[in-house]
Amino acid sequence: MIVVMKEGAAKWQIDGVIEHIEQLGLRSHVIEGTELTVVAALGEKRDGAKQALETLEGVDKVVPILAPYKMASTEVKKEPTVVETRGLRVGGGQIGVIAGPCSVESRQQILEVAHVVKEAGAAGLRGGAFKPRTSPYSFQGMKEKGLELLAEARDATGLAVVTEIMAKEQVELVSKYADVLQVGARNMQNYPLLEAVGESTLPVLLKRGPSATMEEFLLAAEYILKTGNSRVMLCERGIRTFEDHTRFTLPLASVPYLHQHTHLPIVVDPSHGTGKVSLVTAMARAAVAAGADGLIVEIHPNPDKALSDGYQSLTPEGFRSMMAECRKIARALEMQM
Amino acid sequence: MIVVMKEGAAKWQIDGVIEHIEQLGLRSHVIEGTELTVVAALGEKRDGAKQALETLEGVDKVVPILAPYKMASTEVKKEPTVVETRGLRVGGGQIGVIAGPCSVESRQQILEVAHVVKEAGAAGLRGGAFKPRTSPYSFQGMKEKGLELLAEARDATGLAVVTEIMAKEQVELVSKYADVLQVGARNMQNYPLLEAVGESTLPVLLKRGPSATMEEFLLAAEYILKTGNSRVMLCERGIRTFEDHTRFTLPLASVPYLHQHTHLPIVVDPSHGTGKVSLVTAMARAAVAAGADGLIVEIHPNPDKALSDGYQSLTPEGFRSMMAECRKIARALEMQM
Amino acid sequence: MIVVMKEGAAKWQIDGVIEHIEQLGLRSHVIEGTELTVVAALGEKRDGAKQALETLEGVDKVVPILAPYKMASTEVKKEPTVVETRGLRVGGGQIGVIAGPCSVESRQQILEVAHVVKEAGAAGLRGGAFKPRTSPYSFQGMKEKGLELLAEARDATGLAVVTEIMAKEQVELVSKYADVLQVGARNMQNYPLLEAVGESTLPVLLKRGPSATMEEFLLAAEYILKTGNSRVMLCERGIRTFEDHTRFTLPLASVPYLHQHTHLPIVVDPSHGTGKVSLVTAMARAAVAAGADGLIVEIHPNPDKALSDGYQSLTPEGFRSMMAECRKIARALEMQM
Amino acid sequence: MIVVMKEGAAKWQIDGVIEHIEQLGLRSHVIEGTELTVVAALGEKRDGAKQALETLEGVDKVVPILAPYKMASTEVKKEPTVVETRGLRVGGGQIGVIAGPCSVESRQQILEVAHVVKEAGAAGLRGGAFKPRTSPYSFQGMKEKGLELLAEARDATGLAVVTEIMAKEQVELVSKYADVLQVGARNMQNYPLLEAVGESTLPVLLKRGPSATMEEFLLAAEYILKTGNSRVMLCERGIRTFEDHTRFTLPLASVPYLHQHTHLPIVVDPSHGTGKVSLVTAMARAAVAAGADGLIVEIHPNPDKALSDGYQSLTPEGFRSMMAECRKIARALEMQM
Repeated sequence: MIVVMKEGAAKWQIDGVIEHIEQLGLRSHVIEGTELTVVAALGEKRDGAKQALETLEGVDKVVPILAPYKMASTEVKKEPTVVETRGLRVGGGQIGVIAGPCSVESRQQILEVAHVVKEAGAAGLRGGAFKPRTSPYSFQGMKEKGLELLAEARDATGLAVVTEIMAKEQVELVSKYADVLQVGARNMQNYPLLEAVGESTLPVLLKRGPSATMEEFLLAAEYILKTGNSRVMLCERGIRTFEDHTRFTLPLASVPYLHQHTHLPIVVDPSHGTGKVSLVTAMARAAVAAGADGLIVEIHPNPDKALSDGYQSLTPEGFRSMMAECRKIARALEMQM
Repeated sequence: MIVVMKEGAAKWQIDGVIEHIEQLGLRSHVIEGTELTVVAALGEKRDGAKQALETLEGVDKVVPILAPYKMASTEVKKEPTVVETRGLRVGGGQIGVIAGPCSVESRQQILEVAHVVKEAGAAGLRGGAFKPRTSPYSFQGMKEKGLELLAEARDATGLAVVTEIMAKEQVELVSKYADVLQVGARNMQNYPLLEAVGESTLPVLLKRGPSATMEEFLLAAEYILKTGNSRVMLCERGIRTFEDHTRFTLPLASVPYLHQHTHLPIVVDPSHGTGKVSLVTAMARAAVAAGADGLIVEIHPNPDKALSDGYQSLTPEGFRSMMAECRKIARALEMQM
Repeated sequence: MIVVMKEGAAKWQIDGVIEHIEQLGLRSHVIEGTELTVVAALGEKRDGAKQALETLEGVDKVVPILAPYKMASTEVKKEPTVVETRGLRVGGGQIGVIAGPCSVESRQQILEVAHVVKEAGAAGLRGGAFKPRTSPYSFQGMKEKGLELLAEARDATGLAVVTEIMAKEQVELVSKYADVLQVGARNMQNYPLLEAVGESTLPVLLKRGPSATMEEFLLAAEYILKTGNSRVMLCERGIRTFEDHTRFTLPLASVPYLHQHTHLPIVVDPSHGTGKVSLVTAMARAAVAAGADGLIVEIHPNPDKALSDGYQSLTPEGFRSMMAECRKIARALEMQM
Repeated sequence: MIVVMKEGAAKWQIDGVIEHIEQLGLRSHVIEGTELTVVAALGEKRDGAKQALETLEGVDKVVPILAPYKMASTEVKKEPTVVETRGLRVGGGQIGVIAGPCSVESRQQILEVAHVVKEAGAAGLRGGAFKPRTSPYSFQGMKEKGLELLAEARDATGLAVVTEIMAKEQVELVSKYADVLQVGARNMQNYPLLEAVGESTLPVLLKRGPSATMEEFLLAAEYILKTGNSRVMLCERGIRTFEDHTRFTLPLASVPYLHQHTHLPIVVDPSHGTGKVSLVTAMARAAVAAGADGLIVEIHPNPDKALSDGYQSLTPEGFRSMMAECRKIARALEMQM
């Protein structure tokens, strides 16, 4: 860390900083400038050290040097992580596509969608059984019955099942049916949940919270990695901004940024990322072009009858067309899809 | 709801909307304008109806009319809710002040702070025992030992203990020691947790998520109210914006806005809301002037030695001075504090 | 417009709204619902009507129906506008690329860059002569000398010159040298300037302000169109959000959104949109995949010696590689580039 | 500046940084840590140096140390600047209040409002003659006729006239009638305009742009100060965020923050800052409590007939009540108002 002193900081204030750095088990190094003084704190970083130093008298600011995440970082592991389960492969030059309805609604619906997904060449089936809904008056999902239907759809098609888990106590149940555990955007910083999926042997799809920085996102992944599960996929699904023509703002620069800072694969969700069916295909194309390792997309046989999120769900026909367009781009970039 | 058709929408599209509205059990009413047609959908609103209608062909947009929350709304309950537990009273013309360290760190620390809080005239003691931390490498709290120390500090001072709960499975344990259960900003949309505290008999302090709209905030409160707990305090603690001179942006207009839309009392957190100790007192004054029913403030006997959040913690002396200034404003506005 | 009355609004309040609507020269139509009443205001929309109605007693909110821009809208002109000047063609299936340094710095620099731009197959040369700089202590551009150098580079290469104009009084001078007038993001709502370029016969590249909504952006274009200049290109260059790993957040969903709402061509600026050279190429690819009609990119022969924006400027080699990758995507989507 | 090298940076890369620093006329100082190396660049800061260093090979990031503004800074001038013109006094313990309509609409309107303003004890009269409007179809102001009416109202009441100027070429005309030149939020980074008002002898009210950081805001003020006009008032009027229950988010922490970093007085605009008349008074109170030196408020004799911004304008009665409440708080804090 670099401790920047205020202009005109007194000697005793600088000495206080030095003393404090050494109490933290770090080495200090003073640099006196023409206008001000900075003190470098060297050694293994210590949690809380930045904050502690920042409050000392005479200190202007403290600048950290190293990224606070480790296991997620490319500093620790250079080669990209590839997550593979059943036919779904995400990363390593393969774009894995996960599609399906927002919520499982009936046997017929999920089987019909699963066949559409399979035939269009995707490998993952999404579908919510436990649904986190903004309003307590909204449809909350079919729960275990929904999980059973997802498993039936998997048996019929061979697709990998991706479904959301909302609390620690659901891990055991959901794991009986799912191939990938999804942690939703609202739960990105639900640490007991992150630790619970960290203890699972299933891969995890971790969605970015709508106001999470890249650092917070990677630290959330770090909770899972640190607990022992190394098969984590990061999912960019849009952030909260002032824009009102889309439900969220989908910031695709996070794709190349994350590729530079982490070995974990990046999945993009153009459905939640825009909240408008008319924008989904263009953003799916853009995500592939930006370098995404996967896509997760909402589709529904009859979007206008969907119990949730119909307004952002592609029809089967729309999905096939999206797949065809994205494949052209993948091919042009020599990616598999 | 009002369904706005696109310009030039065909008759069969308008008929489709009417049919759909009636299938939803609502009555329809068509208004043909010079440039376009709108269809009103009248009756008890139905969850998902807006989304379903929005995807119909020829529809431009759907405008909801009623607030989606009920029990939190002033439409349902006009008189302000006052939350009272031990000496802490929030609402009804009384500004309740809750103060204490970010984390409980030791017996001496929490007892020392508790006496400062008590003597300055506040009635609630905050202190984290289970700490949600952005990094898995940060101090995670003293857990049950921290709760015991909080209870000891309460016995010594009579202050009401306010502490955070992070998961359903902690409710029973935390309830043995706490007077108020706090749901943190990261968990505002952790619905299993909201339902768990909804089943408790203790009052709940619900913090606004950093990217939550007022509607989402009130719907989160609605989860608690609907589950059966009517003693909910809303806490404004700042939102994520582009501003970088503060940790969060503290938008005080939410105070009068919430007073107009809900009967629940509003507490403001100027410590997290600014993230800078030098701004806390001014924002505490402003919160009182804006009409807040309560304040929750971080203080620490030695902020520069705090294991968390020291950079935003007032010293005991700073806290006494904040209390004195806020009291002057409360008095000027004929509020009790 | 739809005027939504508050629940329990009195008859005299509803009558007041009706009277007011009719004073505005609109027709009114009352719809009484089970819970509340709405009044539709039909006819040619009148500026200020929404605001006037919103303040009437008993009114909850007023919902506008029609987009406030006209000439920019696809309602008025369905076929896409193609902007063409010298060899630069933007729109109509042709992706026009504009590249060059942030600032013109010397004869050698701009000529060297112009040749790189030309050889890589782009058709427009950007370069600032009048520079709007956040700090008054920063390099403010070479002014007229810079314009002369741009014209010389054009003569040498045949590229179309795109350069920024900051004030009405510069129009005459800049028009002597430039092929396209650029209105910068800081000036998107500088209406005297918009009107001044509206009177020009040169095409205009209008950059989106970093906190402008799509509606505000299109209304800014409307100022230019209404004044008489129909050759307007819209440029998405990123918005201000909480994200701190990029300089701005580049929200590519604006590309398909704008294509659905306006006939004007859309150019994307991945240099300002990310502020990091390492992210520029990936976002240029994504922009093409999202359907952009053009790109504007910063390049510099020696980015580390640039007087401005070196940190986001591609090297000549980086630019050639970007062009090659974007062309592959353009070809895959059957676009010319 | 502190140049932080990447982990594992090679010796030749570090040497390149040192050489570059010295070419810039700065002194370098290397600090080798256990994990990485940083190089301090000492001496008078040079514009562009940060960016130049950031692009060198092996460099991770560059951290500036000094604030980039000088004349606006408390480092240069410690005692608060008080702006005084006619009876209006802003700063130095005196809260100056400026009120009036969004636009001057008629002789009767502005005279009526001016008397209300005067009698309520305010000292400044606001009113737009040249109006920047988002839509070209909106009322654009009465122009010179409006200025004449403002001057007449001043003659009748003694109030200081505050009115917006939109372009350099208006300075001479507006200065004939106005006492304070207002630079609007849309023009905060219109540098030719900032320089034009910098050459004026009239005080300037500079509004914060809705996406401006504090640093950008102070640098905009620096343009005016540097050109020669030291009588600048900063005006916080709200920022663009995701919040949709207010028109802008009014972040009052900017008041104490600015007081710590600049000697210029701070005025708050609760009308634009909320965009809702029902929230204006509470936020005016909060602004005073936060330490504002002034308020600028929209009032209108008949808000529902206003040609602009009626939805956020107080009635005369509402304004008198706001003044009374704010005065109580000012008195409690020993401020004059």
